[in-house]
Amino acid sequence: MIKVNKDYLKLPGSYLFSDIAKKVSSFAEANPDKKIIRLGIGDVTQPLCPAVIEAMHKAVDEMASADTFKGYAPDLGYSFLRDTIVEKVYKKLGADIKADEIFISDGAKSDSGNIQEIFDRDVKVAVCDPVYPVYVDTNVMAGRTGSYDAATGLWSDVIYMPCTADNGYSPELPSGGKDGFGPDNKVPDLIYLCFPNNPTGATITKSQLQQWVDYANRVNAVIIYDAAYEAYISEADVPHSIYECEGARECAIEIRSFSKNAGFTGTRLGFTVIPKDIKDVDGNTLHSLWARRHGTKFNGAPYIIQKAGEAVYSDEGQKQTGEQIAYYMKNARYILEGLKSAGYTVSGGVNAPYIWLKTPDNMSSWDFFDFLLKEANVVGTPGSGFGPSGEGHFRLTAFGSYENTVEAIDRIKKM
Amino acid sequence: MIKVNKDYLKLPGSYLFSDIAKKVSSFAEANPDKKIIRLGIGDVTQPLCPAVIEAMHKAVDEMASADTFKGYAPDLGYSFLRDTIVEKVYKKLGADIKADEIFISDGAKSDSGNIQEIFDRDVKVAVCDPVYPVYVDTNVMAGRTGSYDAATGLWSDVIYMPCTADNGYSPELPSGGKDGFGPDNKVPDLIYLCFPNNPTGATITKSQLQQWVDYANRVNAVIIYDAAYEAYISEADVPHSIYECEGARECAIEIRSFSKNAGFTGTRLGFTVIPKDIKDVDGNTLHSLWARRHGTKFNGAPYIIQKAGEAVYSDEGQKQTGEQIAYYMKNARYILEGLKSAGYTVSGGVNAPYIWLKTPDNMSSWDFFDFLLKEANVVGTPGSGFGPSGEGHFRLTAFGSYENTVEAIDRIKKM
Repeated sequence: MIKVNKDYLKLPGSYLFSDIAKKVSSFAEANPDKKIIRLGIGDVTQPLCPAVIEAMHKAVDEMASADTFKGYAPDLGYSFLRDTIVEKVYKKLGADIKADEIFISDGAKSDSGNIQEIFDRDVKVAVCDPVYPVYVDTNVMAGRTGSYDAATGLWSDVIYMPCTADNGYSPELPSGGKDGFGPDNKVPDLIYLCFPNNPTGATITKSQLQQWVDYANRVNAVIIYDAAYEAYISEADVPHSIYECEGARECAIEIRSFSKNAGFTGTRLGFTVIPKDIKDVDGNTLHSLWARRHGTKFNGAPYIIQKAGEAVYSDEGQKQTGEQIAYYMKNARYILEGLKSAGYTVSGGVNAPYIWLKTPDNMSSWDFFDFLLKEANVVGTPGSGFGPSGEGHFRLTAFGSYENTVEAIDRIKKM
Repeated sequence: MIKVNKDYLKLPGSYLFSDIAKKVSSFAEANPDKKIIRLGIGDVTQPLCPAVIEAMHKAVDEMASADTFKGYAPDLGYSFLRDTIVEKVYKKLGADIKADEIFISDGAKSDSGNIQEIFDRDVKVAVCDPVYPVYVDTNVMAGRTGSYDAATGLWSDVIYMPCTADNGYSPELPSGGKDGFGPDNKVPDLIYLCFPNNPTGATITKSQLQQWVDYANRVNAVIIYDAAYEAYISEADVPHSIYECEGARECAIEIRSFSKNAGFTGTRLGFTVIPKDIKDVDGNTLHSLWARRHGTKFNGAPYIIQKAGEAVYSDEGQKQTGEQIAYYMKNARYILEGLKSAGYTVSGGVNAPYIWLKTPDNMSSWDFFDFLLKEANVVGTPGSGFGPSGEGHFRLTAFGSYENTVEAIDRIKKM
């Protein structure tokens, strides 16, 4: 008799952004005359840049002729893309990453969701709080998180690292095992970090990140480093890759996306780096397990899209996508300054496309969501949707058009 | 301390097609003057048809302008594609499938690998033997298959349904629970079927498939029906979809691919159908679990590729892809007749692009692989790579060019 995976049933409610979409669409139906401005989900609005468009047209034409047609891609992705990433991303940062340590995929969401699968079911997971929901939800689905406490919003077997105003939204090292001697149940095996951070927009300095790498190596943990927003870094001393740190090849997996640096949210491309030096306690290399997963449960990103990804790194592509990032960061500045002038407490928005604000008058995140939707017809994301420490906070994104962003902020200022 | 998923380590050797690729490339290096003809892996060679190419160029242009740019796709896929599939696939067959029961994905390999995840870890899996390796390997990775016996090539907790010359390569119902009263450990909970079959090219009649549906409903099992090759069906009374059978909405998941009917092996698109009527023993709908997985671990197939998929179902698309299928089936006939005339025992190739042959002189599958590569410079796939009952057999595919196919068969005839 068939039975479902009971761990799935433990997940409370549905996916955050589905809930938001439902609320917005019922408001829109009830208020057809209102112009709703969406600064909620992290979806981009600027079109793909000309270099990418040109590369895709060319690749489509290649698929039209038997001489240049491409069938199944190499398991780990095309060399033209993996070699380009080595040159244009890692060599530039002085990071020692080889092409065969790079796995091309259909995006960072898939990779950050699937990566937990190569680890033992009993590994202890540590996440920032608030955090991108995929990290925790996929570990729930794998039966790794214990039981859920609806009152606190916490899972019994997850180590939460609060990111609050008190610590500048930068997590502290877990209390257990800090010196290698802490209580075992507080020592994480798998640590998810995302900088620049989603949702807070906070960053980490290179020396802070080095501490995490040193910690992970000391307690034999692995760091999953989600660098999806690195293209938005504007300040010096903020690392673009965890491989800028010494010892990261022994403990860190890095996940990258084309969604935010090149507008690929609907085009789908990403990659994950697993250095061959990372081994588990029994000497098994994580690289070989992930390669096996790729070869068994995935069949490559489309050739056309991999060619599009290559074009992002061309001189024209870098210039054009750089202009898009500058466009979004102009929005970020407008949001940041506008909200500050209106008396809000805000952070982020300098090295990240996300602005993190404290809700006024101690409103709950969802109350502020409803209030903002009703009064300003602006959609944001409730901080509590990212974890309990996000309560009392709210995320706005810089991915709208400049005109809409200005209109939204001006409406909020008038509330 | 980090530990890997030990179930991955149980997998013997690497993925079948990776092994073949290594053997072929070392032969090619040692024999640079030989022209190798590949009739091994099921990869297509004909270019994408004009209707698809045109749709993709148009979609690329849409991505170039802010007005028509597409970001994140709807979770389950675009309506334009799902509605088209309902009309052009299921209504034509008289099957009652709704658009919101269709999940668009990046391909049938991902779906057939990931689908096991929504089931309990203790469900009993039944597979045909020989079989597409992904079904078993992904269940091994999930810890569902028990221990591996290297001598027999069998997993202790898997129910194997041999497909041999004796039963016309069509599996019999599992011995347990046939009347609902068989021994429990022989009653499957999850049954993988693929027709037209990979690797044997065998088919099933509608009344035979109806028996499977009736059996599944009787023992409360779920059938995963892989219909990746349905476009190759040439005979009447061979079902194109499991939903042609009564009761299939209560027990069957169908997986479809664009790889073989439209040449999308390097373009990546597929879909999975989960009727809302399928429930587990506790009343949980499988549809809701798969929707949750899609929303959490996947972010949609690229817009450009979904538009390409829609074009496959246009009148021009159907005509043009139909011509490609006819081209490959001409190859299949040449292989089938050529090998018969050379004295081989062959089957398949009538409703499927695969030809299944018995190795001559009781050679092992891998010995025949080496022999064929060395003597005829032709690459095929050893039957034993698909399971123990595939031993002594060999798979050739019709996906080469006609010229190469003729040359390969003529070389084999002269051996």
